[in-house]
Amino acid sequence: MEITDTINVVPEELKSYIERIEKLELEKKEMQDHVRDVYAEAADKGFDPKIMKEVIKLRKMENDDREEQEMLLDTYQRALGMKDHCE
Amino acid sequence: MEITDTINVVPEELKSYIERIEKLELEKKEMQDHVRDVYAEAADKGFDPKIMKEVIKLRKMENDDREEQEMLLDTYQRALGMKDHCE
Amino acid sequence: MEITDTINVVPEELKSYIERIEKLELEKKEMQDHVRDVYAEAADKGFDPKIMKEVIKLRKMENDDREEQEMLLDTYQRALGMKDHCE
Amino acid sequence: MEITDTINVVPEELKSYIERIEKLELEKKEMQDHVRDVYAEAADKGFDPKIMKEVIKLRKMENDDREEQEMLLDTYQRALGMKDHCE
Repeated sequence: MEITDTINVVPEELKSYIERIEKLELEKKEMQDHVRDVYAEAADKGFDPKIMKEVIKLRKMENDDREEQEMLLDTYQRALGMKDHCE
Repeated sequence: MEITDTINVVPEELKSYIERIEKLELEKKEMQDHVRDVYAEAADKGFDPKIMKEVIKLRKMENDDREEQEMLLDTYQRALGMKDHCE
Repeated sequence: MEITDTINVVPEELKSYIERIEKLELEKKEMQDHVRDVYAEAADKGFDPKIMKEVIKLRKMENDDREEQEMLLDTYQRALGMKDHCE
Repeated sequence: MEITDTINVVPEELKSYIERIEKLELEKKEMQDHVRDVYAEAADKGFDPKIMKEVIKLRKMENDDREEQEMLLDTYQRALGMKDHCE
């Protein structure tokens, strides 16, 4: 009795989906490695990857949102004494 | 001009929320460290933490769901030739 | 033949480790829920949880590191035209 | 006074690194969306994405490791009474 009769799994069909996903995951991993290499290259030139990541996050935001976030962050830090009021 | 007039941030109020969260996060971290220690203790006795984690995940499932998952996993593996049909 | 003879798994011992971990994970989850509740309480009072989280991250840093990070972030944003030079 | 004189950030250089990373991250996201679509397609055909992911994880393992893991998982479950001994 073939497996397929019990739960109707068509092996070729499952295999094709699995292999398509595995291929895409591999390409995605290569892309991720490539991103890591670019950060490493930038770091060699003296740039700070952690700050670059923060800037990339900020670049995804609308200018107004970004400015409001920065102003709030500044206000909260002053309220908590992390910054002098007159700075 | 106090910060609070501009955006109405009451420093004491903000500080209390921040400190309550920091205290809880610290306790959570200690809890996490304690979990890690128990796994290490079990590993010293020959248990496999990776399998223990898997078992803990399975224990959260209803018996029927667990059995169905195991049966499906088995069926998919056979369909992909990862297991002999008669195993 | 008891399982224990084949791979020397002492059921009571395994059970005790598993249950200790499950208890700790439960407590950790309750702690996490409590953190979430405090953020919700602060949000009700008009505070911004996202900014609070950022401030909590910054509070973990040494003042010098924090200031250098902020200055670098500012410099990178100006270099990329995200901020006017004279701001 | 140009920013670059203070911390030697060459705007064009930083911009090129940032834009290269943003491009790669976009491609990676498209790849991730594509993976999600294949899982959705398989689900429409009656396959279970959660089990497919588990199978893909198992396919990355050596046969021996996979078999040992399955045997250990089975043994631990029996030791904890999650399975009858004779099953």
